[in-house]
Amino acid sequence: MATTAAHVARPSRIRLGMVGGGRGAFIGAVHRIAARIDDQYELVAGAFSSDPEKAAGSAADLGVARSYSSFAEMAAKEARRKDGIEAVAIVTPNHMHAPVALQFLKRGIHVICDKPLTATLPEAKKLAKAAQESGVVFALTHNYTGYPMIRQAREMVQAGILGDIRLVNVEYAQDWLAEPLENSGQKQADWRTDPARSGVGGSTGDIGTHAFNLANFVSGLTLQELSADLQSFVPGRRVDDNGHVLMRYTSGARGMLWCSQVASGCENGLKLRIYGTKAGIEWEQENPNYLWVTPLGAPRYRLSRGGAGTGDAAARVTRVPAGHPEGYLEGFANIYAEAARAIIARRDGVAMDAAVSFPGLKEGLQGVAFVDACVRSSGKNGAWTKLAL
Amino acid sequence: MATTAAHVARPSRIRLGMVGGGRGAFIGAVHRIAARIDDQYELVAGAFSSDPEKAAGSAADLGVARSYSSFAEMAAKEARRKDGIEAVAIVTPNHMHAPVALQFLKRGIHVICDKPLTATLPEAKKLAKAAQESGVVFALTHNYTGYPMIRQAREMVQAGILGDIRLVNVEYAQDWLAEPLENSGQKQADWRTDPARSGVGGSTGDIGTHAFNLANFVSGLTLQELSADLQSFVPGRRVDDNGHVLMRYTSGARGMLWCSQVASGCENGLKLRIYGTKAGIEWEQENPNYLWVTPLGAPRYRLSRGGAGTGDAAARVTRVPAGHPEGYLEGFANIYAEAARAIIARRDGVAMDAAVSFPGLKEGLQGVAFVDACVRSSGKNGAWTKLAL
Amino acid sequence: MATTAAHVARPSRIRLGMVGGGRGAFIGAVHRIAARIDDQYELVAGAFSSDPEKAAGSAADLGVARSYSSFAEMAAKEARRKDGIEAVAIVTPNHMHAPVALQFLKRGIHVICDKPLTATLPEAKKLAKAAQESGVVFALTHNYTGYPMIRQAREMVQAGILGDIRLVNVEYAQDWLAEPLENSGQKQADWRTDPARSGVGGSTGDIGTHAFNLANFVSGLTLQELSADLQSFVPGRRVDDNGHVLMRYTSGARGMLWCSQVASGCENGLKLRIYGTKAGIEWEQENPNYLWVTPLGAPRYRLSRGGAGTGDAAARVTRVPAGHPEGYLEGFANIYAEAARAIIARRDGVAMDAAVSFPGLKEGLQGVAFVDACVRSSGKNGAWTKLAL
Amino acid sequence: MATTAAHVARPSRIRLGMVGGGRGAFIGAVHRIAARIDDQYELVAGAFSSDPEKAAGSAADLGVARSYSSFAEMAAKEARRKDGIEAVAIVTPNHMHAPVALQFLKRGIHVICDKPLTATLPEAKKLAKAAQESGVVFALTHNYTGYPMIRQAREMVQAGILGDIRLVNVEYAQDWLAEPLENSGQKQADWRTDPARSGVGGSTGDIGTHAFNLANFVSGLTLQELSADLQSFVPGRRVDDNGHVLMRYTSGARGMLWCSQVASGCENGLKLRIYGTKAGIEWEQENPNYLWVTPLGAPRYRLSRGGAGTGDAAARVTRVPAGHPEGYLEGFANIYAEAARAIIARRDGVAMDAAVSFPGLKEGLQGVAFVDACVRSSGKNGAWTKLAL
Repeated sequence: MATTAAHVARPSRIRLGMVGGGRGAFIGAVHRIAARIDDQYELVAGAFSSDPEKAAGSAADLGVARSYSSFAEMAAKEARRKDGIEAVAIVTPNHMHAPVALQFLKRGIHVICDKPLTATLPEAKKLAKAAQESGVVFALTHNYTGYPMIRQAREMVQAGILGDIRLVNVEYAQDWLAEPLENSGQKQADWRTDPARSGVGGSTGDIGTHAFNLANFVSGLTLQELSADLQSFVPGRRVDDNGHVLMRYTSGARGMLWCSQVASGCENGLKLRIYGTKAGIEWEQENPNYLWVTPLGAPRYRLSRGGAGTGDAAARVTRVPAGHPEGYLEGFANIYAEAARAIIARRDGVAMDAAVSFPGLKEGLQGVAFVDACVRSSGKNGAWTKLAL
Repeated sequence: MATTAAHVARPSRIRLGMVGGGRGAFIGAVHRIAARIDDQYELVAGAFSSDPEKAAGSAADLGVARSYSSFAEMAAKEARRKDGIEAVAIVTPNHMHAPVALQFLKRGIHVICDKPLTATLPEAKKLAKAAQESGVVFALTHNYTGYPMIRQAREMVQAGILGDIRLVNVEYAQDWLAEPLENSGQKQADWRTDPARSGVGGSTGDIGTHAFNLANFVSGLTLQELSADLQSFVPGRRVDDNGHVLMRYTSGARGMLWCSQVASGCENGLKLRIYGTKAGIEWEQENPNYLWVTPLGAPRYRLSRGGAGTGDAAARVTRVPAGHPEGYLEGFANIYAEAARAIIARRDGVAMDAAVSFPGLKEGLQGVAFVDACVRSSGKNGAWTKLAL
Repeated sequence: MATTAAHVARPSRIRLGMVGGGRGAFIGAVHRIAARIDDQYELVAGAFSSDPEKAAGSAADLGVARSYSSFAEMAAKEARRKDGIEAVAIVTPNHMHAPVALQFLKRGIHVICDKPLTATLPEAKKLAKAAQESGVVFALTHNYTGYPMIRQAREMVQAGILGDIRLVNVEYAQDWLAEPLENSGQKQADWRTDPARSGVGGSTGDIGTHAFNLANFVSGLTLQELSADLQSFVPGRRVDDNGHVLMRYTSGARGMLWCSQVASGCENGLKLRIYGTKAGIEWEQENPNYLWVTPLGAPRYRLSRGGAGTGDAAARVTRVPAGHPEGYLEGFANIYAEAARAIIARRDGVAMDAAVSFPGLKEGLQGVAFVDACVRSSGKNGAWTKLAL
Repeated sequence: MATTAAHVARPSRIRLGMVGGGRGAFIGAVHRIAARIDDQYELVAGAFSSDPEKAAGSAADLGVARSYSSFAEMAAKEARRKDGIEAVAIVTPNHMHAPVALQFLKRGIHVICDKPLTATLPEAKKLAKAAQESGVVFALTHNYTGYPMIRQAREMVQAGILGDIRLVNVEYAQDWLAEPLENSGQKQADWRTDPARSGVGGSTGDIGTHAFNLANFVSGLTLQELSADLQSFVPGRRVDDNGHVLMRYTSGARGMLWCSQVASGCENGLKLRIYGTKAGIEWEQENPNYLWVTPLGAPRYRLSRGGAGTGDAAARVTRVPAGHPEGYLEGFANIYAEAARAIIARRDGVAMDAAVSFPGLKEGLQGVAFVDACVRSSGKNGAWTKLAL
């Protein structure tokens, strides 16, 4: 009945804690499902809220034994336990990413942090520096890079299928802030439109960073400078709710980025198109299992996740066959799975598989710098502006 | 730090065993992910293979402590443990559903069984009778009924949005058996084209039952009789690999069902269209987050999972907002979640919420009877044939 | 200013007459536009109605000088004129196709006739015989065969790209007769649901013949037998308004055909899918500029009318570049253009270019026999039935 | 046989001449088909080329009796004929629009001119002034405004369905100049990339003007200023082949415009999206029969040309029912049909129906000024720039 000696048991699950994500939160539940899908994590502790009652209630809801109402207490106590958490998921509003992360990483606890990295650029730099010094694994959940067909797209770019990239067109259109939802007390709208908690960017920070990151991830390009025209369409709104950004890359490629939270009727319209001298690729997050390839001078074809013509990069983050759609949660789970590979390699003292890829501090810094540059450029009537890195 | 008394802890996770699903299997892994997504099950035992070495290896891979190489032994031993499994997932080839299920249900262990219910109709009837007598929860993973937009479609039919249904058009087109894959030793193709293990139907049993079930689930119609033209296009194939079926419902509605495993270039093309006197609905599994509604005399509109215009039936099986696609695994997980609600109600001795819905014995019997009727009809050159229930 | 002798003038426009198609008609206007698009016809005479007043009014509307209220008079008088019509377009209800056509073809006037060929099979046979004897060009406007991507599909089938065809799936779904429109006095519904004028088939004759013809045109297959289940869903309707048909081809291929005029929310949903051993093709009339090719074991690709990867068969009936959509009228015009090539070859006494292709008597006979066989099969509860040719 | 006195004959066809559009040209043939579709024009004269031999050959090809090799001669002589042309279609390269148009309009001959209005802004202003003084009908073939669903979209904007417009997103992506086609001698590429013939803009002039015009037509907005980043990706190219433009409207709305002739795999990708406070609309030229409406807080719906929910503005330029696709040529023909209504009203000395709408001098001036502003802005590193009108 017992496993025989000949069988090497799987690595034990990574003991995970969570900060934020209590009752009424959105992204916390997503992180928890993402952590469960591949069975590599076990959620054993949480500081789900700074309100003790709510923290405890959330822990009870979730069946999590060790509940804290202070993340600092959690960091300190867990670090002292033999069975303390090995990693922490940070799912707080943006301004609480850095303070929380610092508590854990200084104790050698790996960090999986929601995006953007921080609310401000100085914070981001400070956090990046501290994280690098601590040597922990630091994963930032730019989850859209977890989609298999995005991995496929990147692999094709790297293989030269597109030739030299000329154009990047990325957009992220939503409508959930088309009206002043923040005045209704809705929790998500409340903090995401509050510069003190969200940072200087609104739509640029919340979703523009995703779009920017995704374009960088796939294209491999480096931004030279940008020109931004940001708007706050909803009267009284304190952050941008729409952004139009032109981009120039160091390679000579050019790009357009559009992020909006006021595009009526748009749900989660993240779309990426990249065109090179030989071919283009087109992808839409709302139907993520397909990647269109548009060669110059040949018919366009559709790659299907798990299907013919896809390569290793997609295959290693794919669970089910072609035609069985994977979605947002699976893509998110891929970030967790990749981070787990890094954490387990660290635990085992071995080198991480070179194929492992997940967004981290570098991407986080770029994202916060992107928002900062957009705001500065827009403040100067669209002057071409470099990232302040 | 501990949960205060005021907080009612979540129900403890259902202790789950699994039969089948070891190394090299496909659907076992799907069941395991489905069981994990909502954190309501804990996989604690398995008879992953009848080969002891393989069983133990699979258990080690999965981190499952209690491994058996005999399902009968597992049923017997687990039933005696205080912490024994409360439910078993059966993910064996079709001919092994009934023998396995009987071992568990007679001991009061709930069963979550892959489809079709059994390989033969007599077996199905025997199993259904035994399961009814035992009183266990019996869930059959016709997983496509777990998709939120399928729930939405059913709710709209029930609410009369479509008026009186006239037409059902359901199809399930794949191509993975377009060539004699069974001769290559591929495990899935091997047993699925072997009548002794798969049953008398090939494509009709493997996917036709899904299509038939889905159409029934949404339409609420009852089949009167069918006329089938089954084919085995691949030379030497012992079961049908394509089926054309006409259907007449007791209400006077008519239908067409097409299932194929030789439709070159089709991946997992399950599509359902239903047209009534007032409106129609159209849905495709490969892009499952959308439901088209096609009213007579008004523009067609697209309902989006989690989006405006969707109702309670979809909402209760939805995890993430509109525009964040859910996929096959989430739909599958919904069957597990619904079964969990039934199991926990049983555990607690309370009535199950009336909204809970999952396929079970009735649907299983209908599916096996459908295959049986297709084979009989086709054998009589398409004579209109009733289900032998 | 005049054209120099060195320039060979284009052939003079074909002098065309029309029977039917007066005020309030639908298809007459379509024929006239189709005849104009490529500037190969000149409409010079018409018997637009049997009501003299209406005939004259229609002619005035259209700027047609020679107006008749009797098609027999028109045939007789035009045949005697030096500048009499060379061809006649027949756009009357079905029962008036044969009587009209006979008047013209016996005088050597070419015929372009709307489909189906006739209302009854005996009439069809009589007409076909007479037409063959007269030696005129006889074109039947199964206009969907005029779409360039349908030509492309046929060319690919002929070139063996699909391998051996196994499956044909064709459907034509509309909803305009979902309610008893014929009771409202609507002219189109009135005659199309009247067996005396439409023939024994309703949806089978009106649109099923198109679907059947299209599948034959592209696949090149020959029907062995069919099994039909026809319905008249609308109470009081005298002809079928929905048809479900299974098909067996002489090659061993199998097919499904669905035609409906009661599929709520469907406009003109003609779709063709054909799957062979090597690849499939998928095409939808409502977005006709694209043809999907679905190879076994390779990514599916989309051919675009006028675009890369398309061949001669499509190119010769294409007017504008890829991305500039052509539609229903252009496809219809291609039948007229092909017929013009035949007529001009006849006029010039030269052989017709072998690439010219348009539906004629053979296709017309098959269509009427198809309706006849559907009605007979359905009357015998779906007995497999051959075309009575 | 003759039309009775009671029947008012249709207006006689407008006698049309054409300048340009001889052998090897593209857009000339399009204009001719567009002029024929609704049977309102008769092409009776042409100066198809400045090469007499080619001019005469083209006339012979087309069956046009009066052929000229000089447009000035044609203007002079036709003006003197009793049966001289009433209107002229100008389909020359851009730099030849103004000189040609001036010859005709000063003789009171109506002008239908291809876009852009002229190659330079001073020319455009001069032409506009002269045309206004002459009082002729001047139609500019920004043909995409002829699509019924574009008319539908404009009607919905005007009716307030979208609320206050916040965002305009228009793009026009092609790939036909992704390589230095102009070096191959290809006629279209040759003049369209030559500033002397095309004007200072390349992609901005050739297709950016279409995009700009379409957005203005539907939105009804007035541009305040723009910021452009133009590129010439193909080495040696003398005009832009890609343009990124940000736009600010006087109402406070904002927009993005992308035009490209180097987007590999894109055919004729003109897409328009407009989002207001209440709803958005989305439309794609490559599938032009559908208009998506995306309300805030309600399901998105699809309007179909000719289908339920469409209004008068679309209906009056629609020829065939829903589901029977109309395309590029029909949309183009609508510009001709609208111009014909204006010309016939002028001929009859009556006021033009207020519903008639076609692009003319105002739109032409705006287009040329748009290109001019893009080039100036891009030359000043994207400085916000107003149209120099």
